[in-house]
Amino acid sequence: MSTTASLTTKERLLESGAKLFAEKGFAGVSIRRICADAGTSPNMVHHFFGSKQGLLDAIAEQLSVSIFAIPIRLFQTMPASKADFASRMQMLLETTLEAYIENRALLLVVVREEVDTQGVLDYSKAFTEFLERAKRDGFVREQLDSEMATGAIIDRILNQVSFAPQVRRVYGVDIISDADYRQRWCELNLDLFLNGMAAQ
Amino acid sequence: MSTTASLTTKERLLESGAKLFAEKGFAGVSIRRICADAGTSPNMVHHFFGSKQGLLDAIAEQLSVSIFAIPIRLFQTMPASKADFASRMQMLLETTLEAYIENRALLLVVVREEVDTQGVLDYSKAFTEFLERAKRDGFVREQLDSEMATGAIIDRILNQVSFAPQVRRVYGVDIISDADYRQRWCELNLDLFLNGMAAQ
Repeated sequence: MSTTASLTTKERLLESGAKLFAEKGFAGVSIRRICADAGTSPNMVHHFFGSKQGLLDAIAEQLSVSIFAIPIRLFQTMPASKADFASRMQMLLETTLEAYIENRALLLVVVREEVDTQGVLDYSKAFTEFLERAKRDGFVREQLDSEMATGAIIDRILNQVSFAPQVRRVYGVDIISDADYRQRWCELNLDLFLNGMAAQ
Repeated sequence: MSTTASLTTKERLLESGAKLFAEKGFAGVSIRRICADAGTSPNMVHHFFGSKQGLLDAIAEQLSVSIFAIPIRLFQTMPASKADFASRMQMLLETTLEAYIENRALLLVVVREEVDTQGVLDYSKAFTEFLERAKRDGFVREQLDSEMATGAIIDRILNQVSFAPQVRRVYGVDIISDADYRQRWCELNLDLFLNGMAAQ
């Protein structure tokens, strides 16, 4: 955490809240504790965010914008070929997975507390629109429901990161610390999502 | 809950625990409360299960066996054709989704408390083996990683049920109460998982 004077009180509360929620969960940290960590008086969370929930909502919004900043850029230009579409999808899986891993502790708090964020909605919408345009360009099957595909891929990445300790316990593979497995996981899931299960 | 004399003390504790954990979450209910509901003396959870966690573990095991009882039967005989394989997959999606919905409250507690159960492992294993056999019969693509496909489908169903209230808030569709949407959801996801995203 930075405590430089250049941060405003509000910014310091967002930083302290993010750090402490990630460490101790939402229920495990008090407003008083967050304000102490941020070096502000105890009523500042109320002043800026209304409540502890309001602070979490603001932190979740910042987080979702930050997580999806790189992945969402992949939707900004259209692929030039089927191979280009496939490699774009692979980058999408990799960059989203990495952003989730990097922010795992705080992400789990946000998911557990069921916070809706504009960031994830914007990402989902951009993803779905990208698939619809790729459909018009002939890279995606006509029959595909683009919203379902978007949802399925996000579910897959979220759960692999959420349940990483259980997957490690049961299957002995670790998506968080093992970069080779992470890459292999992306390749195998890309194959599933691009080509499906059924033999031709 | 049944309180007939035919249930043993241990069975009554499993029933009361399942009911109360589903209503109030794991942290929200005490051993004393569970024993009172089951009409037993307060030391019976300790006696039969060691601890509140031990009781939850036993409830989770019962739940996972019960949830997967119908879906797992779909793996017991092999499909006779590609069309038969596809309809088996559709029944699998539908029956697993319905079992998750029916047990949603307790399932969320089990997921949240990160309980591993043999029931879900047996289901995953049977699912993966079914896909491997279907591969040998020519219904599933050679290149598919059957474990990844199993995981992706389970992730998709689990999250759709877990996040149902958020999906309802944001998209206005309700997989829990709307049987038509549930069927449509299964069809669209089946299409994704069978045929993939990519145009041929």
